[in-house]
Amino acid sequence: MSHHYGQDAVASLEAGAVEVIPPDGLRAKLGIASRENRPLIVKLGFDPTAPDLHLGHAVVLKKLRDFQRRGHQIVVIIGEFTARIGDPTGKNKARPPLSREQVAENASTYLRQLSLILDVDRLAVRSNAEWFDTLTVRDMIDLLAQFTVAQIMEREDFSRRYREGVPISLHELVYPLLQGYDSYVIESDVELGGMDQLLNCLVGRHVQEAKGVPAQAVVCMRLLRGTDGQDKMSKSVGNYVGLTDSPIDMYGKLMSIPDELLPEYIDLTTDLSLEEREALKARLGQGAENPMAIKKAVAFDVVCQYHSEHAAEAAAEHFYRQVQKKEPAAEDYVQVTLGTLSLPKPPVTLVDLGAAIARRSKSEIRRLIHDGAVSVNGERVDDAGYTFESVQPGTKVRIGKRGYYEIIAG
Amino acid sequence: MSHHYGQDAVASLEAGAVEVIPPDGLRAKLGIASRENRPLIVKLGFDPTAPDLHLGHAVVLKKLRDFQRRGHQIVVIIGEFTARIGDPTGKNKARPPLSREQVAENASTYLRQLSLILDVDRLAVRSNAEWFDTLTVRDMIDLLAQFTVAQIMEREDFSRRYREGVPISLHELVYPLLQGYDSYVIESDVELGGMDQLLNCLVGRHVQEAKGVPAQAVVCMRLLRGTDGQDKMSKSVGNYVGLTDSPIDMYGKLMSIPDELLPEYIDLTTDLSLEEREALKARLGQGAENPMAIKKAVAFDVVCQYHSEHAAEAAAEHFYRQVQKKEPAAEDYVQVTLGTLSLPKPPVTLVDLGAAIARRSKSEIRRLIHDGAVSVNGERVDDAGYTFESVQPGTKVRIGKRGYYEIIAG
Repeated sequence: MSHHYGQDAVASLEAGAVEVIPPDGLRAKLGIASRENRPLIVKLGFDPTAPDLHLGHAVVLKKLRDFQRRGHQIVVIIGEFTARIGDPTGKNKARPPLSREQVAENASTYLRQLSLILDVDRLAVRSNAEWFDTLTVRDMIDLLAQFTVAQIMEREDFSRRYREGVPISLHELVYPLLQGYDSYVIESDVELGGMDQLLNCLVGRHVQEAKGVPAQAVVCMRLLRGTDGQDKMSKSVGNYVGLTDSPIDMYGKLMSIPDELLPEYIDLTTDLSLEEREALKARLGQGAENPMAIKKAVAFDVVCQYHSEHAAEAAAEHFYRQVQKKEPAAEDYVQVTLGTLSLPKPPVTLVDLGAAIARRSKSEIRRLIHDGAVSVNGERVDDAGYTFESVQPGTKVRIGKRGYYEIIAG
Repeated sequence: MSHHYGQDAVASLEAGAVEVIPPDGLRAKLGIASRENRPLIVKLGFDPTAPDLHLGHAVVLKKLRDFQRRGHQIVVIIGEFTARIGDPTGKNKARPPLSREQVAENASTYLRQLSLILDVDRLAVRSNAEWFDTLTVRDMIDLLAQFTVAQIMEREDFSRRYREGVPISLHELVYPLLQGYDSYVIESDVELGGMDQLLNCLVGRHVQEAKGVPAQAVVCMRLLRGTDGQDKMSKSVGNYVGLTDSPIDMYGKLMSIPDELLPEYIDLTTDLSLEEREALKARLGQGAENPMAIKKAVAFDVVCQYHSEHAAEAAAEHFYRQVQKKEPAAEDYVQVTLGTLSLPKPPVTLVDLGAAIARRSKSEIRRLIHDGAVSVNGERVDDAGYTFESVQPGTKVRIGKRGYYEIIAG
């Protein structure tokens, strides 16, 4: 493959970025790549304690794909050194020390997920243990000396904890510097991240400057909010759509997002063209249409990306039938054998049948019918006097929110 | 030599200490030494960038001498590793990186000075480069993880700088931990320091606890204020009496201290017995006596310790003649050859002679006589009409504050 690496790509590569530091940094790097006829080295860090990717990660990964498609070199850095240490105090249960084998396993899980977006055969993969296992304490002190306490503590997470008296272990201050040192070692030209990674990416620039080598350009992408519409998408908050979620889960989670998230989901999660995205957003803006139709378009597109069009159609169908129409799936039905029920002689009232199969009192069944929470063969029954001439096998009765019963013969 | 290392020594070893941590820590360590019939390991750290010792250091060193005389093992740790790094930012001019040779030279200067107080042949001397040159980054991160930012920042110097926005480099936070790690490596039982070293000594305890070994007892001594009576004695402030100052300088600096410092100088700088010290302080308290006599006793005792009784006598004599009596030293006289002076025929007035030798106007000489600033052969002359029948070689004339002249033949 032959590439030009030219500055003409700058607008497209910066599309969707919230911050480029320095503002002309990416343009300058592309200029160098073009003059030297070499690809840019674009850094992607990976924390092996968290191998599961979600749509929030995908925002950055898709931007990396733009670089990769133009021939630039993505270098994935496996944070093995730090993952093997874990949290030495043992206080952070989310960071147990990992063995070499666990790191390798998580890295392979990660690469498999990356392959949903990137061409993994063209990635360079390096472990930071390569350089940190042999770094001396002296090198480390030189590195620490390049930063002041105030610079590191200005990070929102640290300053908040310090203010609130929540202990910060000293080694936590060091980890961002190690990430920054990675940029120096791999001679990173560009580091991409979410806006929450901005300070980490800038540490990389600072280390490179201190070492007297060219500093990387930093491109920070907008953060995708999670399905709850509150915090940024994250596994620990539980508001995430995993890249390996099943088509049905993925579709369902996307359908559950608050309407006001739609514009950012249209932009950050779909693979639609700019024109298609603008058209969708325009439809939203007019307010005439039920946003659910637009949500479905987003969900469909996302499932297509990570699974297939076929899977997306099936997921859409499932959603329509079982969420919109509230039809339970076959496996949700409790099968009740007709002969085992103690029923009065026919005709049998719905109250009698319901009390027998749900093992509830007749007055409860009457109240549920009154509340509209009972249906027969998918049709809600409002009449507490509803009566069966005879109860046929195959009859489906819903009683209350989750009580699905199917009468079977016997 | 056979020793008992017993707990009966605890009162004497704690005498003069401001803090012992934990309160029964030294007693417990002496109990262990006695049971195991082994000397205690007593740590003494040395920063090779500052090899000059003064009376402030001597307070701690004399306490170490008490331990040494009871057979305990003093381990001197040369802070070579950190001295060779210096200040990697280059901003702290007081901490340039030192070469191996410079460290060795400063260490030998230091040991020579230690020999004024301790038996240096019985010291164990170790360089911290021995363990830090091979420490891994992983070990270092484990060490850092044992401390929180708040613990280290509570040190007065750090918290003040942080509050005032004076940059603190991250590596500065690490240096106290390295000192603490020294305690772990040498299996320190006791660390001594001035009160300004209390937090550093406690870091040593903390590291030992984190490593699962017994924590050292910490004994902190009172800080000696400098000769200005303001700050603690320190070379950088310039208010110090160096252990290698000449007898005359030492005596003179001690005579210059404010009277209110006498009680602490009696206790912390002299080698007098408890009874003698109390007697001196009692004489002070009565207020009947000029404190200068007591200051002389202190100065005499100190010069005896670091030089000799003979040197102390000479220093006292010098002080009496040249400071109290304001007699200049021989080398302070400007020799004036009689034949070179243009003088009127005898008898010669003091005004004429003074004007000729000091190259000043007669009216100036008259004013100086009036001000009491002129003397002949050590006797002040108040009479502006004072006249010499003839000017004899050997005559000494003082004109003004610093104009000492001796007439010589020729």
